[in-house]
Amino acid sequence: MKIAVLGTGMVGRAIATRLAELAHDVTVGTRDPEVTRERDAEWFDANTAVSLATFADAATGAELVVNATNGGATLEVLEAAGSDALAGKVLVDISNPLDFSAGMPPTLFVKDSDSLAEQIQRAYPDARVVKTLNTLTADLMVDPDRLSEDSSVFVSGNDAEAKSLVTDLLRSFGHADVIDLGDIATARGPEMWLPLWLRLWGALGSAEFNLKVVR
Amino acid sequence: MKIAVLGTGMVGRAIATRLAELAHDVTVGTRDPEVTRERDAEWFDANTAVSLATFADAATGAELVVNATNGGATLEVLEAAGSDALAGKVLVDISNPLDFSAGMPPTLFVKDSDSLAEQIQRAYPDARVVKTLNTLTADLMVDPDRLSEDSSVFVSGNDAEAKSLVTDLLRSFGHADVIDLGDIATARGPEMWLPLWLRLWGALGSAEFNLKVVR
Repeated sequence: MKIAVLGTGMVGRAIATRLAELAHDVTVGTRDPEVTRERDAEWFDANTAVSLATFADAATGAELVVNATNGGATLEVLEAAGSDALAGKVLVDISNPLDFSAGMPPTLFVKDSDSLAEQIQRAYPDARVVKTLNTLTADLMVDPDRLSEDSSVFVSGNDAEAKSLVTDLLRSFGHADVIDLGDIATARGPEMWLPLWLRLWGALGSAEFNLKVVR
Repeated sequence: MKIAVLGTGMVGRAIATRLAELAHDVTVGTRDPEVTRERDAEWFDANTAVSLATFADAATGAELVVNATNGGATLEVLEAAGSDALAGKVLVDISNPLDFSAGMPPTLFVKDSDSLAEQIQRAYPDARVVKTLNTLTADLMVDPDRLSEDSSVFVSGNDAEAKSLVTDLLRSFGHADVIDLGDIATARGPEMWLPLWLRLWGALGSAEFNLKVVR
C-alpha cells in the first residue's frame, strides 16, 4: 500500500521503518524535505526504501496517511498537507493532545467532552479518521512481541471499512487483540489513558509496557 | 481490623460483604441507619456480620475507612463523617468523579490538573488517603479471580505505611499485581482511566474486565 507518514520524530520513524519492512511503499512527509534529509541523513541512509517529500506531496500520493506528529502540531501539519490531499483517505491518527506548558507530567489540551481525533475529523470531514496506537510507546506500536505476552490496542472511527483496513495493518504489526471502541468520539477514552500511562512510566521506570484488557 | 465502609450502593455492599468474609469487623456508614436498614432489610438479614451506623459513628469506631460513595457525594459524606473521625485514619478512596449532568457516557467533574483523591486529602489533611480500586467493577474489586488471568490495580497516596496496609488488603482480595504509582497526585492517572473503561464497557457489552499492565 502507498502510505504517507507525517512526522519525522521517534514515532514517525518507527512507523515508517516497520511499514517499509512490511513491503509498503512509504513516504515520510515533512515541512522542508531538504532540511530533514540533511538533519536525519544517517537515518535516511539506513532506510533507503523510505522516500521523503513535503506534507502535501506525501499525502497526495498516498492511499493511507499516518499522523505521527505531536498533538500540539497536528492541526497545523494537516493544514499544510491540505484538505484535497486528505479527502477520501484513511487518516490514521496516533497522536496525543499533550500540553507541556505547565511542565511534567504534561496535561491534555483537549479531553473528556472532545478529543483531538474528533477535532481532526471535524476539520477534514472527507477524511476517514481512525484513532489508534496512541496508547503505547513507539517501539511497541510496531512490534508488540517485544512484551512478554499479548496486549490490547484500540480503534475508533466513523468508517467501518477504514477501521477494518487499519485493524489488518495492526495485526500485521503483531497486535493480536484489536478492540473496536466505536465511532470517532470514543477516541476520548484512549486519549485520556495517557495520564495513567505517564504515571505508570514513572512508577515502572520504563515505557516498555502496554495494557491488556483481561476479560 | 475494624473497618467502616461509607456508602450502601453496589460498591459499598460488595466491599462490606468481602471484608466480613475475610473476618474483618465491618460497619457500613449511612446517612440514616433506620431508613437504610428498612430499605435494604434483605441484604442486612443476609449479612448479619455487618453492622450499620451513621457516617460519623462508623468512621469514629474504625481503624480504616473506605469511601465507597459515588464521587459526586463524596465530599458531603466525608463532611458528615467529620474531620475528627477521619484524623489519623487510613482513608481508602475508591470513588470516581463522574458527572452525569450531560447524559451518558458521564464526564469527569475534576481531572488532569487535580483529582478527587487530592480534593479529599486537602480537605482532610490528617487523614491518610489512599486511592485504589476505582478502575474496575465492584465484583472484580473484591474478587479478581473471576477473570481468566491476573490483572493490575493501583495505589496512590502520600503515606507509605497506609499504602502498604492497603496493598495487603488488596492482596487478600486476590489482587496479584498492585502497582504503587506514587503520591496522591498520581491518582489523576487512574481517575482518568474511567473514560476508556466506559468505552470498553460499551464495546465489550460487559463490565467484567480489567486492565493488566503487561511488561
